[in-house]
Order: sequence, then C-alpha cells, then structure tokens
Amino acid sequence: MRYQKVPDETIRRLPRYLRALLFLQQRKTESISSQKLAEYVQLNSAVIRKDLSHFGAFGKRGTGYNVSLLSKTIRDILKLNKPQKTVLVGAGRLGTAIASFPGFKRYGFDITAIYDNSKAKIGGKIGDTTIKSTSRLADIRRSEIKMAIIATPPDAAQETADILVENGVTGILNLSSCYLKVPKRVKVRTIDLAMELSMLPYYS
Amino acid sequence: MRYQKVPDETIRRLPRYLRALLFLQQRKTESISSQKLAEYVQLNSAVIRKDLSHFGAFGKRGTGYNVSLLSKTIRDILKLNKPQKTVLVGAGRLGTAIASFPGFKRYGFDITAIYDNSKAKIGGKIGDTTIKSTSRLADIRRSEIKMAIIATPPDAAQETADILVENGVTGILNLSSCYLKVPKRVKVRTIDLAMELSMLPYYS
Repeated sequence: MRYQKVPDETIRRLPRYLRALLFLQQRKTESISSQKLAEYVQLNSAVIRKDLSHFGAFGKRGTGYNVSLLSKTIRDILKLNKPQKTVLVGAGRLGTAIASFPGFKRYGFDITAIYDNSKAKIGGKIGDTTIKSTSRLADIRRSEIKMAIIATPPDAAQETADILVENGVTGILNLSSCYLKVPKRVKVRTIDLAMELSMLPYYS
Repeated sequence: MRYQKVPDETIRRLPRYLRALLFLQQRKTESISSQKLAEYVQLNSAVIRKDLSHFGAFGKRGTGYNVSLLSKTIRDILKLNKPQKTVLVGAGRLGTAIASFPGFKRYGFDITAIYDNSKAKIGGKIGDTTIKSTSRLADIRRSEIKMAIIATPPDAAQETADILVENGVTGILNLSSCYLKVPKRVKVRTIDLAMELSMLPYYS
C-alpha cells in the first residue's frame, strides 16, 4: 500500500507518534484521543488530527484512535513493518551501548553487522554479533544493508560515511559530533547529545 | 547582559548555530556568511539572519559573521559562558559513554556527580568522578546542580526525575526512552536514538 502526498512535515512527525504509540502498547492502552496523544508528543492536537488524516486515520469521537491499528499504519508508512538490516560502525563505549539497546529492535531495526578498526575489538562480540574490521566495510553491499549508525571518533566519520554510501547505505544516524557530506539521495540524522543539553540552561 | 524578547523559536535554534560555530572554531575559520552557515545547520539563510539580528549580531557584507564573537554571544545568551554543573544518573554502558564524551565540556557542561544504584558500580570511577549511590541523590541540592542527564533503565527514570527536580534540577536530558512528568518550570529534552533512526527508511 502506498500513501501518497503525505507532506514531509508530517513524515517527520510520524516517529514521534510511533514512539508514543509503542509506549502505550506496552501499557496495554487500546485507544487514545488526539488531546492525550498531544501531551505525549508535545504538539497541538489539531496538528496531530491533520497529520493522521493524511493517511486515512480518523479518531472516533469519545474513544479516539485505535493504538495498535495506528501504530501498524505508521510502521507501514515509515517502512518499519519488516526488519531493517542495520550496520553499526564504531564499537567504542557509545557503539557498544547502542548495539545493546532494546529500542532499535522495537522499531524494526536489526543490527546485523558491527565494524571497528581496533585490533583489540575485531573478532570480539556484542551480543551475538561479531565485530569485523572496517577494512571489510564494503562487504555490506552483499548483505543489502541500507541503514547505518556511525559511532566512530569524529576524524573517521566522513571516510566511514563515504564507504557506506558507496556500498548502498541510504540512511545514516550520525553520532560522531561531526558534519557529514553525503549525496542528496542519502538522509542523515545527526544527534549531538551535548548540543541537546545546551538548550536547557537558558530556561534555568 | 540580558537579551530580551528573543523568541523561543530562535532560542531553540541557537544550539545548532553554536554547534556549527564550535566546529568552525576548531578549524580556525574566522568568519562565515549566513549562506555558508545555512548549509551546516540546514536552515534557510534568511531565518539565520533574522535569528541573529535579535541580539544585534549582523554579518558584514562580503565577509559575514565573526565566528568567535558570534560563538561567544550565543554562549552568553544560552548561559553557557560559565561551567554548568551537571549530574549523571545511570552509569551503565550509555552513561559511561556519556561521562567520557569530550562534547559536553566543549559546551560548558561539567559532569561533577555520577550516581548509580548498582553495588558493583558504587565507589568505582569514571574519569576522575566517583560513582555514588542513588540513595544519596538528594545531595545534589547542596552542590547547587541545575542540569541532569538521566541514563537509567526506563523503570527508574520517573523516580529519578522526581528526586532531581525536588532537589533543584531545572533541566534534564532524558535518554531513558521513557516519558517523564515534571513541573512546567523544568525543561526536559528526550532523545530516543531508535526514534531518530526510524525516520530514515521512508526515504530509502
């Protein structure tokens, strides 16, 4: 099923809705009003109703949206309805923490390959996955991996991104605190935790 | 110096500008045009010019903004111009990775206290900081710590937030993948890495 003409703005908000819905599903909540959902995602409930109407999800007056149905629909749209093979590059402290997160699996990401350039780490395991040498990173092409997480030191990030993109990766979560240059067809989300924290003292 | 009437929208974008400016300072770049800055922060250059004009920063035609001056001004506004004492709760894999990040220091955050509830960890050190028992978390009041990073498992996050807020914390970076309820005067930034990744397959 294709959902056409969903605006980019809406697409960008869908993961926030999905996050709330997964949380509600864990708590066995069956339905939720747009007002209540608005509290979770910190958006106006009118924005939510409009966003969700784009793909035919309409809350029922009095009961609201069906949580599991809406969650499934959003997964379908975001192409999270089948496992997304994901490569992690960088098995340092952050990379190791990430490879052990249960969160990724919940969203449908399966970290099937881990690479590092440290001889001490290559051959070791995180969970069931063996850490391989970054010299073999081009191998991801054969596994048709499209998603990647970069958790390398800053000075290795761009080179890593280049190899990933050359070998078929189209989406990168960049945790390297570096800016990455990639072709337009590749999407990068950069998360810099220190930057996120730096917003808070202003309000103190 | 107080910068009044800076809109909330602008405040929210300042960390992104600061991040780019810190990057440029590391590369010894002295000045930057709004167009070039726009490429780094992925915003329209007109938005940037308007944002920066709110606090009297005007780029010079031909040369642009003075990088170090603009960086200093934004730090002043965001109250990052003196070290911000920060507490980290949760010294698991992610917490340990965070405590070792050089990034926080660059923005002015000083992780001066680390707490965990695991007997195996209490008394141990991350860098120079000794891990203390969460049973003593209320001690942060005496140290006048205002900023906190929560890297606990989800089921401990709300209780942790409650104690932090009771004892003077006004800003929380929440990495627990849980929703937190806090009083309005407290600001929370929640980062869920799996959610950030979940935006990418749509475009693949």
